[in-house]
Amino acid sequence: MTLSQWLNASLPERQRALQLCLDRIQSLDPSVHAWVQVSPQRPTGSGPLSEIPFGAKDIIETRGLSTEYGSPIHRGRIGTADAAIVRELRQRGAILMGKTHTTAFAYKTPAPTRNPRNLEHTPGGSSSGSAAAVAAGMVPFALGTQTRGSVLRPASYCGVTGFKASFGLLPLEGVLPFATSLDTLGFFTHTAADTLRLWVALGHPTGRAEDVVLGVPEPVPEVEPAMADAFRNIVSALRSGGASIRSVDVAAMHARLDEASNTVMFYEAARFHEQRFREFGSQVGPDLADLVREGLEIPPARYDEARRFIAESKVRVAELYKATPVILVPAATGPAPSGVASTGDARMNAPWTALGTPAISIPIPVSGGLPLGLQLTADHGQDARVIRTAVRLEGMLG
Amino acid sequence: MTLSQWLNASLPERQRALQLCLDRIQSLDPSVHAWVQVSPQRPTGSGPLSEIPFGAKDIIETRGLSTEYGSPIHRGRIGTADAAIVRELRQRGAILMGKTHTTAFAYKTPAPTRNPRNLEHTPGGSSSGSAAAVAAGMVPFALGTQTRGSVLRPASYCGVTGFKASFGLLPLEGVLPFATSLDTLGFFTHTAADTLRLWVALGHPTGRAEDVVLGVPEPVPEVEPAMADAFRNIVSALRSGGASIRSVDVAAMHARLDEASNTVMFYEAARFHEQRFREFGSQVGPDLADLVREGLEIPPARYDEARRFIAESKVRVAELYKATPVILVPAATGPAPSGVASTGDARMNAPWTALGTPAISIPIPVSGGLPLGLQLTADHGQDARVIRTAVRLEGMLG
Repeated sequence: MTLSQWLNASLPERQRALQLCLDRIQSLDPSVHAWVQVSPQRPTGSGPLSEIPFGAKDIIETRGLSTEYGSPIHRGRIGTADAAIVRELRQRGAILMGKTHTTAFAYKTPAPTRNPRNLEHTPGGSSSGSAAAVAAGMVPFALGTQTRGSVLRPASYCGVTGFKASFGLLPLEGVLPFATSLDTLGFFTHTAADTLRLWVALGHPTGRAEDVVLGVPEPVPEVEPAMADAFRNIVSALRSGGASIRSVDVAAMHARLDEASNTVMFYEAARFHEQRFREFGSQVGPDLADLVREGLEIPPARYDEARRFIAESKVRVAELYKATPVILVPAATGPAPSGVASTGDARMNAPWTALGTPAISIPIPVSGGLPLGLQLTADHGQDARVIRTAVRLEGMLG
Repeated sequence: MTLSQWLNASLPERQRALQLCLDRIQSLDPSVHAWVQVSPQRPTGSGPLSEIPFGAKDIIETRGLSTEYGSPIHRGRIGTADAAIVRELRQRGAILMGKTHTTAFAYKTPAPTRNPRNLEHTPGGSSSGSAAAVAAGMVPFALGTQTRGSVLRPASYCGVTGFKASFGLLPLEGVLPFATSLDTLGFFTHTAADTLRLWVALGHPTGRAEDVVLGVPEPVPEVEPAMADAFRNIVSALRSGGASIRSVDVAAMHARLDEASNTVMFYEAARFHEQRFREFGSQVGPDLADLVREGLEIPPARYDEARRFIAESKVRVAELYKATPVILVPAATGPAPSGVASTGDARMNAPWTALGTPAISIPIPVSGGLPLGLQLTADHGQDARVIRTAVRLEGMLG
């Protein structure tokens, strides 16, 4: 049941649907492993989201519920207060269903979660459990966070919609940081129409409808053949559907931004986790241990240079968005990789996260096989616009 | 000694100057009460700020040092990790000198701090100790935070320079929140030239010099006669000095933004502090207790309406800044009020904080009497521009 269907349902219908969600979790989670803990928490107020359940990634603090950060070091840790975003949702009537698995400290070391579309594949990360819980129909929406590609990539892999807000727009209070210049909250829903309704339910303006003017990178960024074909087909379909499409040249910037984003992340995350690493050593997870060691070697001058390049790129990209208010790119390099040892490659998302743009991934219609995702971005602050455009494209792509 | 003088000094000179700072604290702090704790912490790296001491407001987490949030509830609390901004400064060579007094939880209930310019007056708040420590020459710079006017107002009252960055630009990780849509980090220094050098030392780009085009509100916002006169004189002096000055009409927006900022702050802070209030009652401070009670009564719809008005105002003000990239207003309604029962009125700062603009207050030359401040703001992200313009005005005003 999509969030839009929930919002159209009466309160008694919602209460019955909640039980169906719990049943679904009971039957599917032993194989999907989306949840760290399921323990529905009553709302603290009422509003448009009344009686609608959601999941929260386990780096988001929740009072009286698990908040283990995906790490054995913190196994059994119980949160002491709700994070601001959880308070806000519960105040508007939503039911916190429980906590979803995250990779260790929202970095690379995988969670036990499997991709509900094919259990032999990764769901992506770091917001693995939230993506899988929505994809498996266990909750109509869930909270994730993105530092490089931790919302849009798993959304793409699991065939759901993933949205990350403009940097700084949604409150991170109560969310464990990773790299503070990049960390951003986001949501998983089934459709872009759901994201729009959630955005409105959270009190954000929707803005007005406008013509669909899309920028498409020429050349198309290097991705796997399946994704490259799907992306080209989508662009043709949209052009036939009446969308105005213009080429944009972002290839050089894209590659350098990916690198700059990595430098910033390594520098900041290494310093944030340094003390934990000194105390717990490789128990923080092998990937994070490597990151701390490597990140601490980055001198401030290199970090500053990366931040300067990002700042300059923001100015350049703001110019691009004037002519093409929404830019389309593949949401991942391909479908979910096989196995669960790696959560995949964030290269298609990281440059846009570094720019602080709002971004949304919607499923590309595929015949058989694993899902693919299409990523839309817009200028910082144009959250409603990028969501509305995704709703339009969803309609055009059927 | 100003930060610029520190930066021009050799390392041995800096080490001697550090001792002079400690001596100054020892002789003056028994009457000024700027510090909760003085305990110089060695840098963790070296760089442009090597051996330069700074103070940090006591809502900023510091490992092994007091982090009491200005509240008797948390007396004796010791921080467990350095906040991101403290880590960053120590990594670049700076010495954390200690913690400075804040009003209770950075709201209204005053700290013991006195205004170094006249001990019978408030230093302003909530960053009372950081403003006073710089004004008294105890450290060349100090960290504060601003949710309505908690950096610029005390800067104006104490005759120093106060700068708050664009919303979201500096990392708040490790800083106790108050209202997450508004909270912003800032610095106190002696001069705008100091702020610029600090900005560069933190790795931010400085941008290029440009003509000084200033917007001045017509009518001038309602302030006390002393401030109104000083502001008019300054504008005349700048016009004679060659600045291009244009009238801007912000009066109606200013008043409504002040109200919207209050609604957002009451709503968010009440929910953030609700649990603490339930546990400790009026021990959280009489002002905060009132805020929690009142703020919890605000329905989400009223909060949403306030946020929508702020979002629309951002779009309008971005247009204003295109014609007049820097807008001047008084930094406070007048000089520091007499007594220490109230930390003064943030009405001149709160609208700009709500808009997320970078803002700086520089001292207005006054003959005798208490200091006054001039506030400059620019569009979100134009931090370097507003600082550079302040440096130019500082030069023009001699």
